[in-house]
Amino acid sequence: MHPLKQLMNPASLAFWGASNNPMKMGTIQLTNVLETGYHGEVFPIHPTESTVLGLPAYKSIMDVGRPVDLAQLTLPTDVVPGVLEECGRAGIRSAIVISGGFKEAEGAEGKRLEREILEIAHGYGIRFLGPNCVGVFNSLCNLNSTTIPRPPGGGKIALASQSGAYTAMINPFLRSEGIKICQTLSVGNEADIDLTDCLDYLREEPEVRAVGLYVETVRRPLEFIEAARRIVREKPVIAVYVGGTEAGSRSALSHTGALSGPDAVYEGLFRQAGVIRADDIDEMLDFLRALAAQPLPPGRRMAVITNSGGPGTSLAYHVEKEGMIVPPFSEGLCERLDAITGRFAFVRNPIDLTFEVDLSIFKRLLEIVFESGEVDGAFIYGIFGWADFMTNLEKRFPGIEQMRESWESAYEGFLEELAAVPRAHGKPLFVTSFIDAGGSSLRTLIEGDVPVFPSASRAARAMRALLDYRLIHEREGQ
Amino acid sequence: MHPLKQLMNPASLAFWGASNNPMKMGTIQLTNVLETGYHGEVFPIHPTESTVLGLPAYKSIMDVGRPVDLAQLTLPTDVVPGVLEECGRAGIRSAIVISGGFKEAEGAEGKRLEREILEIAHGYGIRFLGPNCVGVFNSLCNLNSTTIPRPPGGGKIALASQSGAYTAMINPFLRSEGIKICQTLSVGNEADIDLTDCLDYLREEPEVRAVGLYVETVRRPLEFIEAARRIVREKPVIAVYVGGTEAGSRSALSHTGALSGPDAVYEGLFRQAGVIRADDIDEMLDFLRALAAQPLPPGRRMAVITNSGGPGTSLAYHVEKEGMIVPPFSEGLCERLDAITGRFAFVRNPIDLTFEVDLSIFKRLLEIVFESGEVDGAFIYGIFGWADFMTNLEKRFPGIEQMRESWESAYEGFLEELAAVPRAHGKPLFVTSFIDAGGSSLRTLIEGDVPVFPSASRAARAMRALLDYRLIHEREGQ
Repeated sequence: MHPLKQLMNPASLAFWGASNNPMKMGTIQLTNVLETGYHGEVFPIHPTESTVLGLPAYKSIMDVGRPVDLAQLTLPTDVVPGVLEECGRAGIRSAIVISGGFKEAEGAEGKRLEREILEIAHGYGIRFLGPNCVGVFNSLCNLNSTTIPRPPGGGKIALASQSGAYTAMINPFLRSEGIKICQTLSVGNEADIDLTDCLDYLREEPEVRAVGLYVETVRRPLEFIEAARRIVREKPVIAVYVGGTEAGSRSALSHTGALSGPDAVYEGLFRQAGVIRADDIDEMLDFLRALAAQPLPPGRRMAVITNSGGPGTSLAYHVEKEGMIVPPFSEGLCERLDAITGRFAFVRNPIDLTFEVDLSIFKRLLEIVFESGEVDGAFIYGIFGWADFMTNLEKRFPGIEQMRESWESAYEGFLEELAAVPRAHGKPLFVTSFIDAGGSSLRTLIEGDVPVFPSASRAARAMRALLDYRLIHEREGQ
Repeated sequence: MHPLKQLMNPASLAFWGASNNPMKMGTIQLTNVLETGYHGEVFPIHPTESTVLGLPAYKSIMDVGRPVDLAQLTLPTDVVPGVLEECGRAGIRSAIVISGGFKEAEGAEGKRLEREILEIAHGYGIRFLGPNCVGVFNSLCNLNSTTIPRPPGGGKIALASQSGAYTAMINPFLRSEGIKICQTLSVGNEADIDLTDCLDYLREEPEVRAVGLYVETVRRPLEFIEAARRIVREKPVIAVYVGGTEAGSRSALSHTGALSGPDAVYEGLFRQAGVIRADDIDEMLDFLRALAAQPLPPGRRMAVITNSGGPGTSLAYHVEKEGMIVPPFSEGLCERLDAITGRFAFVRNPIDLTFEVDLSIFKRLLEIVFESGEVDGAFIYGIFGWADFMTNLEKRFPGIEQMRESWESAYEGFLEELAAVPRAHGKPLFVTSFIDAGGSSLRTLIEGDVPVFPSASRAARAMRALLDYRLIHEREGQ
């Protein structure tokens, strides 16, 4: 069993650094552990308090009197070695060291302390995350040991990061975008467990369908490439690398003691490893939600279906700019589309339905287009959701609210059916829309695993990532 | 006076195509005119109804019996010429023709009808937007003649677009992002008024500080370049062009009858015109909100201030990737910063304040950094807003809610002071943050004209646009 399996799925957790003072980082973390509904047992360790957050507190791990799977240490730097030693004596074999002040700090003392805790861990067979990290999240056992309330759970995306911010502070952003997360691992200074270990662990996690990495350095390049090539046979890996400029490199060194390298070196490393590079965290999340949700396109021919000319043109442009094509449809396919729409002479690919159209038509058009064999994937720009059109109308037309509700519910039915089409045909569908971004219509699509992007360029780049991964997957021979 | 001045600021509006049927496009538009609180008089014209939306309706514009400034025609294609003729006879000199089915339609009839309405307009001296457009918005007189509720008003950004979607359907997105808009013009097929006219008009609008264009074609390239060079002496112009691929070109032709050209030709045209090109609508809005709000950087040296290592490293990387530099601070400046923070040996540029820090420090650090003369602009990544940290704590610690409220209000005071620093020093500040994206803290910054971006790359590209505009401004000799 991979050592991270126990660390990420502990039956019990001993916690150092939480008290009854809500302004302490450890207290905020343990509060989140409890409020997230962690499935296991929790043992707060505190030198003076008899209870912490309503739980019985123990003076020492030795007083707990039964085996404990995981220790989290949110403690001043200088007491970490002693507590880790105690953990070892108590039989704990997994730890998360939140504390900073180790290798990333200036001067020799931090580096010495980091070597010391690594030696202690080796002596007892303890594997640990950190130091200088923010904790973990695992939706499978509701473990959230960070300071931030959990991200939306139930997803197929895992994040492993040399930045804590990008695994926890990011949660409000994930909520607002509707991006569901399965597991997050903040690796900090990587004294012991590093991103390479995370790749090996996440490969074996069946719920995880796509992995995102935030990288300031790769500490074991050869092992990283090997681990990456193993995992990308089964699931895609997307990485953000920001160490490759003078200031980026200087910043990374002080952040996690990372020795970064030139951008081109990492570009080559990722390419060799079969890892797809994203420009920044937002693009990484675009790629991940697309890869985790949609089938891979068998080729690069794309359909564009729109009910608004500008977004349709934008999609056509960006899809081609990203190396795909938007082929004109054959005469036969056009005739079948005309039979559905009852209209003629509207352009075929993009299909522009213009303003007034029965919105259920999207699903029927998409099915015919996919069945034709003339495309490998599709984009829809849709004016989805009635809410905005109705806002002012409802003030003038009493009763329209009821109509709206019945339309919206019918419309959500159409969208559920639409969302089922890609998987039935083994071809991906992305949606772009400005309308009703946080509204129920788009939520229906997102729940149905159809990614919704606000712009054509973001949707096109995400489709390109699917194509890139298909090539990687073929190359790695699975 | 520029003809768009009257069209966009009419004292009165005659409206064709609205009825008491809420499912008609014209009814939705007129409802928005009324609900947006349009400052002028409104005269619905309808063949059979005696009132429309509670207003007295007129069988013909001739029955109104007084001068009218603007006509909006949301009518079937074939009746448009006759109604436009009536408008001319009634002395109306500005019109918006919403109706489609003209040049953009396949076949000869639409093209003939478009020539016909243009001849009628010329005969009477009518200037008009469209056909095949969605209406206009002007926050100065609360005129919103589109189908979509108004965008956030009071802004300094104007949009002129060959796509209606990108001036109206986009409003929910603008609301969710907190992007305030002053005026929007949907130009449709540009039979008469085109984007070049819009540039000349918007140059003279003092409230407008930045102009965005969505472009599928430039119909009068030489005049466009001249108009653009005139306006960019006073305010920046950002353009999105999507006609430059095979399918983009095909789509544009059917959308607004636009004859687009190769990407490189337009790239050169924009460069010559002093127009900054954005990749897509979302990037255009990033550039616009930055340019409309912040002073231009005198040079390319940037400070990065962060309380989280990963985002700080990401900012340092992306700022340098976009051609700016993040210079290490001098010894003297470091000493002044140390005196403020009471800490030593934290890295200087990026300045990483790490987790636990008095948040009012941002303002004092920024002032010292700006005063030093060592940088020309700044980026802050901030964990702004307490909301997310407190969500779970409040369940466990009764009373903390009150503390949170008093902190939040103090914190908003700090942010108001922070937002005033850039203008006082004539150097730009951008913020990136994932925390509390829709929350009150970030709203305080946005209200204070500090743009907030979710990612480092977006913030860096927007700063690059400010530098690009500074160069254009210098080149055009003002």
